Amino acid sequence: MAKALANKDEDYSQWYSDIVKKAGLADHSAVRGCMVIKPLGYAIWENMRTELDRNFKATGHQNAYFPLFIPKSFLSREAAHVEGFAKECAVVTHHRLKTSDDGKEIVVDPEAKLEEELIVRPTSETIIWNTYRDWIQSYRDLPLLINQWANVVRWEMRTRPFLRTAEFLWQEGHTAHASREEAISEAELIHNIYTRFAEDYMAMPVIKGIKSENERFAGAVETYTIEALMQNGKALQAGTSHFLGQNFAKAFEVKYMTEENKEEYVWASSWGVSTRLIGALIMTHSDDCGLVLPPKLAPTKVVIIPIPTLKPEIDEVAQKIIRELEELGISVEYDCDVKKRCGYKFAEHELRGTPIRLGLGMRDIAKGQVEVARRDTKEKSFVALEGVADYVVHLLEDIQDNLFARAKKFQQENITEVDTFEEFKSVIEEKGGFVSAHWDGTVATEKAIKEATKATLRCIPLDRKLEEGKCVFSGEPSEGRVLFAKAY
Amino acid sequence: MAKALANKDEDYSQWYSDIVKKAGLADHSAVRGCMVIKPLGYAIWENMRTELDRNFKATGHQNAYFPLFIPKSFLSREAAHVEGFAKECAVVTHHRLKTSDDGKEIVVDPEAKLEEELIVRPTSETIIWNTYRDWIQSYRDLPLLINQWANVVRWEMRTRPFLRTAEFLWQEGHTAHASREEAISEAELIHNIYTRFAEDYMAMPVIKGIKSENERFAGAVETYTIEALMQNGKALQAGTSHFLGQNFAKAFEVKYMTEENKEEYVWASSWGVSTRLIGALIMTHSDDCGLVLPPKLAPTKVVIIPIPTLKPEIDEVAQKIIRELEELGISVEYDCDVKKRCGYKFAEHELRGTPIRLGLGMRDIAKGQVEVARRDTKEKSFVALEGVADYVVHLLEDIQDNLFARAKKFQQENITEVDTFEEFKSVIEEKGGFVSAHWDGTVATEKAIKEATKATLRCIPLDRKLEEGKCVFSGEPSEGRVLFAKAY
Repeated sequence: MAKALANKDEDYSQWYSDIVKKAGLADHSAVRGCMVIKPLGYAIWENMRTELDRNFKATGHQNAYFPLFIPKSFLSREAAHVEGFAKECAVVTHHRLKTSDDGKEIVVDPEAKLEEELIVRPTSETIIWNTYRDWIQSYRDLPLLINQWANVVRWEMRTRPFLRTAEFLWQEGHTAHASREEAISEAELIHNIYTRFAEDYMAMPVIKGIKSENERFAGAVETYTIEALMQNGKALQAGTSHFLGQNFAKAFEVKYMTEENKEEYVWASSWGVSTRLIGALIMTHSDDCGLVLPPKLAPTKVVIIPIPTLKPEIDEVAQKIIRELEELGISVEYDCDVKKRCGYKFAEHELRGTPIRLGLGMRDIAKGQVEVARRDTKEKSFVALEGVADYVVHLLEDIQDNLFARAKKFQQENITEVDTFEEFKSVIEEKGGFVSAHWDGTVATEKAIKEATKATLRCIPLDRKLEEGKCVFSGEPSEGRVLFAKAY
Repeated sequence: MAKALANKDEDYSQWYSDIVKKAGLADHSAVRGCMVIKPLGYAIWENMRTELDRNFKATGHQNAYFPLFIPKSFLSREAAHVEGFAKECAVVTHHRLKTSDDGKEIVVDPEAKLEEELIVRPTSETIIWNTYRDWIQSYRDLPLLINQWANVVRWEMRTRPFLRTAEFLWQEGHTAHASREEAISEAELIHNIYTRFAEDYMAMPVIKGIKSENERFAGAVETYTIEALMQNGKALQAGTSHFLGQNFAKAFEVKYMTEENKEEYVWASSWGVSTRLIGALIMTHSDDCGLVLPPKLAPTKVVIIPIPTLKPEIDEVAQKIIRELEELGISVEYDCDVKKRCGYKFAEHELRGTPIRLGLGMRDIAKGQVEVARRDTKEKSFVALEGVADYVVHLLEDIQDNLFARAKKFQQENITEVDTFEEFKSVIEEKGGFVSAHWDGTVATEKAIKEATKATLRCIPLDRKLEEGKCVFSGEPSEGRVLFAKAY
C-alpha cells in the first residue's frame, strides 16, 4: 500500500519532506545541502522550463551559456552585489589531485594551487557583464536579450529540498539596453511573464509588487517580485526581475555609442526563477494523500488502471482510450502490471499527483462506462466509454481552473488588514498569511518589525490604492499599505 | 562586408577558430579554458539536445539531476576510474569569502575550510552509483534507465572551443541492469542511437567500433565508439557508450535481490555525447565562406533577403512566403534591415550557415520568380514564386542528403589499407585519414605505434571482416584490420 505521509495539519514541515521523498521528487545526496532531483521532479522542471523558454523566445530572447566559474576579483567590482552574494559560496582553489606518498589515498596536489581562486557562480551578473563589454559597441548591438539555463551554488547553512539547497537549477536573464525606460520595461515584461506562468500554468495565484530597499536584490535599483502564499500561511518569493540601472555597466565599463555618436553606459535588467518553484507548487496544491499537480504541468495527465487486474477485454478498451488520448496530445500512463494490486496503484498515483485516474473494470465495461477519479477533489464518477477522451479534455481544464480558484480563495482569505501593531503580531502569530499594514517607508521600521515578529516585508503591491495612514509600528505617516508575512 | 576567415587549406586550425568566433558560435571567457557559448552555438546545442532527448525517452529513459560536487573519497573507490579521471579537476576546498582585514579586497575565509574537499564532477559514475545503492533493492527496480543533462569540468591544459574545454555541456546516461546481457544490449542500443543521430541528423558519417583496452573508458569493460573524420584528415571520437560490468556496483555495494531471492551485484552501462559534437559538425561540413549547417540541425533554415533593399511590393511577397514556410514548420528569418546592404547580409548568412537564402528583387517578382541560393554548393537558381515553399521543403531534404553523401565520399576516400609500417607512416604523414592495418592486439604495439607516428588506435570496426594477417608493426599474427588515425 501507499507509504503514509505525515499529517499536513499536524506537522506541515514533515509532511513536505515526506511528499518530496515518497512521491519521488528528490532525494538527499552524499554532498551536504545538495539534492538529487529524481525523474518525477525533473520532469516537472522540464515542463516548467519548456513553457518559460517558449515565452522568453516569443519575446525576443535568446539562450546562451556562460562559465560555471567566476574569478574571485570579479565579485568585488560591484560593491552592493558582493555584500549580498559573495560570502557563502563554493571556492575552487586547486586544479589537481594526486596519489598520496604512501599510495593509500587521493590528496589535493599542493603544486596545483590556482593563482586566483574561482567561485562557483552564485549568480552570473559579473561574468556576463564582463563579457558584454566585448559584445556591445554601438546602439546597433542593443537591446541584448540573453537568457541562461544553469546550475548555481550558494552555500546555505540550513537546506530543504527545492526551497533552499546549496546547488539549484534556474534560468537567469541578463539584458542590456540603450535607455533607462527600456530596461525598466524589460523588467516589467518579465514580471508579467512570471505572473502569467505562475497563475495560468502552475495554477498558483501571486501578488505582484516591488521589493523594499532592504529586500532588494544586491546591486539592483528596483526589484519586481511575485509573492505566493503557501498552505501553512507562509509567503514564498516565486520569481524576481531586477532593474539594475547602470550599476553593472559602470562596474565592468560597458559603454555604447549612441546614434548621435556619444558614449554612454548601458542600462541593465536581470531576472530569474528556479527549482524552488517545485517547492511552491507542492505547498500550493497538495494534500494528505500526496502531490496534486495542475494538469498543464503534470508529466502524466491520465493514468489507466485495470480493476482489479488485467483481462483481454479490459486491455482492448484501454488501448482504444490510449490511442484517443494520445491523438489529442494527452500524456497517458497505462499501469497494467499484474504484480501490483490495484489499491496499491490507486494510492501510488494519488501520491504522485496524476490529475485523472481511469479505472477499467469488467462490470463497468459491460455497462459501457468507465470510472473517472479526479485528483484535486478525489471525486469519482462514471462516464460513458463513448466520448471519454473528450470528457477527459474538459475535465483537465476544469481541474486546472478549480486548483487556481481554490488557491486564490485561500490567498484572499489570508490577506488581513491590520491597523495596530498588536493586531499585526496576533495575526502573524495565530492566523498567518499576509498582513496588510501601513508602513512609514523606512528600513529601520522594517527591521524592527522583523526583529519583533519574524515577518518580513514581502512587497509593495503594484495595485495597492494610495491612502493616507499611520505606520503600525512607528505611527509615522504612510502613503499606503504594504504586505508582511513570515516567509520561506 | 563579411569578416574574412583564414583559408581552410592553408591554416585549418586558424580557420576553425575564425569560424567559431566570427559565425558567433562561442567566445573565450575570462576563465582559463572555459568558453562562452553564444546564441547560435547554443541554439545548435538545443537542437541536438531535443533530438537526442526524444530518442532517449522513446527508448524508456528518464532524466534526473545529480549533484555538481563529488566528495573526494568517492573518486578512489573504483581503482581504474580514478587513474583515468580524477587527476586534473577543479577542487573546492572552502565555502566562504570575507572582506580582508584592511577592508580592501575579498579573500577566502580560512575558517571555512571543508572537512573533505569536493571535486567538480568530471563525470558522474561515482556520485550516481552511490545514489543507486538506495534506489535499487530488488529485480523489480531494474532496469533503471537514467540520463542527465549537465555541465562537467576537466582541467585541460590545452583547450580549443567545443573540442576540448575545461567546462563543457553533455548528457550522461547511467543505467543499471539485472544481467550482463541486458547491460551490453543497452550499451549497443545507445551506440546505435548515437550512430543514427550522427548520420541522419548531423549528416556526419561515422565508423562504429569498439575501443582497444588502452583507449577504453576508465572503469569500463567494453567501450563502444563512433568515430568521425574531419576535413583535415584527423579523426574525432564523437560519442561513446560503455559496458561497465559490475565494477561500479562492487565499488559502491549496489546489490539486488533476484526473482529467486538471491543477492547479486547489479550490471551497468554509461554513455555520453557533449558540446564537442559542435566542433565535429563544423569540421565535417564547413568551408572558406563559413559554417555549413545540415538543415535538420539548423536553427534558422531559410533566410529571406530583399534585393537590393526593402520595398512594399517585396515585403508583401516576403510575408506570404514566411506564412507558407511557417505553416510547414520551417524556421525562417526575414532580414529586412534597411541599414545593412544586401551583400553584407548575403555574406553574414553564409558565415552563419543558413541552408537556404531566398533573394527577393523587384525584377524577379515581376517575372513571378525568386532567387534561391543553397549554402552547401552555393548554387543559385530562379524558382517560380508559386509553390516556392514546397520547393524549399524538397531542397532542404536534398541539402541534408548531399551533405551526408559528400562527407561519406570523403570518409571512404580516406580509409587507406596498408600492409607495411612504412606505408602506415607515409599515409599518416602525407594523406591523413584512417589507416586500416593489421595489429597484433597488444597494448605494447599500440603504444609503440603512437610513439612513432602520433596515430592512435581509433577503433576495432564492428563490421570488419575477420582475415588472417600480420601486424604492420610487430609482424605477429592478427585476426583482422583495425583503424588508426591522428585524432582530436
